[in-house]
Amino acid sequence: MDLLKQTLAGIKPLDKEAMDKAAERQNQLTKPSGSLGRLEDLSIIIAGIQRRALPVLEKKAIFTFAGDHHVVFEENIASAPMEITAQQVLNFVSGGGAVNALANHCGARVVLVDMGIATPYMRPDSVKNKRVGKGAANISRGPAMSRVEAVKALEGGISSVLEELEEGLDIIGVGEMGIGNTTPASAIYSLYTGLQPSEVTGPGAGIDEETIKRKVKVIERAIEINQPEKDDAIDVLAKIGGFEIGGMAGAMIAAASKGIPVIVDGFISTSAALLAEQLNSDISSYLILSHHSAERGYGHVAGFMKQKPLLDLGLRLGEGTGAALGISLCEAAVRALREIRTFDQAGVTDVSEL
Amino acid sequence: MDLLKQTLAGIKPLDKEAMDKAAERQNQLTKPSGSLGRLEDLSIIIAGIQRRALPVLEKKAIFTFAGDHHVVFEENIASAPMEITAQQVLNFVSGGGAVNALANHCGARVVLVDMGIATPYMRPDSVKNKRVGKGAANISRGPAMSRVEAVKALEGGISSVLEELEEGLDIIGVGEMGIGNTTPASAIYSLYTGLQPSEVTGPGAGIDEETIKRKVKVIERAIEINQPEKDDAIDVLAKIGGFEIGGMAGAMIAAASKGIPVIVDGFISTSAALLAEQLNSDISSYLILSHHSAERGYGHVAGFMKQKPLLDLGLRLGEGTGAALGISLCEAAVRALREIRTFDQAGVTDVSEL
Repeated sequence: MDLLKQTLAGIKPLDKEAMDKAAERQNQLTKPSGSLGRLEDLSIIIAGIQRRALPVLEKKAIFTFAGDHHVVFEENIASAPMEITAQQVLNFVSGGGAVNALANHCGARVVLVDMGIATPYMRPDSVKNKRVGKGAANISRGPAMSRVEAVKALEGGISSVLEELEEGLDIIGVGEMGIGNTTPASAIYSLYTGLQPSEVTGPGAGIDEETIKRKVKVIERAIEINQPEKDDAIDVLAKIGGFEIGGMAGAMIAAASKGIPVIVDGFISTSAALLAEQLNSDISSYLILSHHSAERGYGHVAGFMKQKPLLDLGLRLGEGTGAALGISLCEAAVRALREIRTFDQAGVTDVSEL
Repeated sequence: MDLLKQTLAGIKPLDKEAMDKAAERQNQLTKPSGSLGRLEDLSIIIAGIQRRALPVLEKKAIFTFAGDHHVVFEENIASAPMEITAQQVLNFVSGGGAVNALANHCGARVVLVDMGIATPYMRPDSVKNKRVGKGAANISRGPAMSRVEAVKALEGGISSVLEELEEGLDIIGVGEMGIGNTTPASAIYSLYTGLQPSEVTGPGAGIDEETIKRKVKVIERAIEINQPEKDDAIDVLAKIGGFEIGGMAGAMIAAASKGIPVIVDGFISTSAALLAEQLNSDISSYLILSHHSAERGYGHVAGFMKQKPLLDLGLRLGEGTGAALGISLCEAAVRALREIRTFDQAGVTDVSEL
């Protein structure tokens, strides 16, 4: 609990001075003021997060937190067998997953964290062991985990990020792997946004409309039976969350405390973002939603977070794939701020001064 | 005229077999089928354009065509002095422009082409000389150029691309630099979409609402006085176009004829895309709109082209900056197709076969 408390206490509001300087520089670059749109805004936010007028995005990492969810198997609403969580993590280890391809694209390393995979597998050393249990319990019959375990999950996410600081972390993406984890994510959305479970529940990796109806009932029951306390994010995580959701929220908290921008992946990761914001409202300025997930209801959620995701390409994969694309855009934004010459440097007439 | 005719005759429909194979592979990769959304579609289109099931995106170039427009100065609707076109091209030569920063980001070289800059400047050898004249004439008083010059502009664009084949071209972005070139672009849009000039005319790099009103009148007059023949794209280019717009259309034609995907930059480049499509309707499958320009009316235009641009980040700069971001997304799409392992390779259970 100490690690969580200390880390939360270390989160500051963004550095206004760095942001002002970055904004001033944007207006001196050889282009019409504002003409790079959201790339300009992004560069200024990242300046504020990193607390320097000229931010640096060299060391990048995508954290993929993995965990299982017994609810979807016991209630027969799963899109795929549980074993796939472990199989995919091993696929990521050997570089063959979608997250690897897109992490390569943006020049990020992939950091894999086992938060509680249920299927027995030979865990390679390159997968961090932050296991809290053998899969989260069936949330439609009781809590996903104990309160102590929820804190352990959050702290597992925090320490995962802290351990990587030495290798360098200028920006992180946060994603997940866990068959069935749209179910707890939708439960968290419904609880916080006040929307009906049916409005924020979709097919996940692929179930039919009949199964979605049952999934909605499972989520309704999970909220009904557990009565999670909205204002207490640890309670929410324990009752209707999951180990990897806790890990992601922890990673966001740790990054914010160290002045590192966090690119949030998709549907599940954004539910972790909601929990992280609940734990410390300053965190929201450190979070950048990468893309508009194709999963049903995501539009409501992004609206609730008062953010417009950077991309809308119909992705619904997770793993950190959308975060990788988001990191690439952030790098473009920072490159523009750093590399475009000023009117003075380039000998180009500054129209705003005519 | 021979070069134009030959190049147009070399454009084939996309390779259906390559596309089918790419689509088949997408369904064997270790991810839920379709879960990479538009990235999957992009990879399949690029396979069809390159006529190979596993496309390659290593050699990339952004072509930036520059030219001037006397109409905006003579009619007093310019956002900036004419000299900036030449100044910015020199800025690009020395690597200090926005297009350079974003081309670096996506690993593309920048190919600069002078199609008809009006201000005298010392043209470095690295800027291709495809000059058709000293700026396009005032379209509100007569044609922008003669029909012979329009063909010369198109062929300048074609030869610019052909000359670069030796250095390698797996994908190109097409953008422009030219103070005042939203004016001919809006005229072309109005002509083809049937929308009123006022619906497709905005502030460009920055003019006030009063000046926009005069800009609309100038565009109305340009169409009225010149009576361009819609079905004859060369006539349209000659009467209400511009040298760099012709260059861009030519580049698109050349790329399509060589099986090279074309990433269209923004507002001005898309007007060139309309002309290119008019010259050969098969070209449209080779064109990928990179982003939804913030310039007024672009939504209508993208709809008219029956394409949804990849990005919507409020960019309104041109130069090829949006194209650079689009190239990066195409590369992500191709990487995913190439690098993600199949279920068989990775030992992951294929849910679709259960």
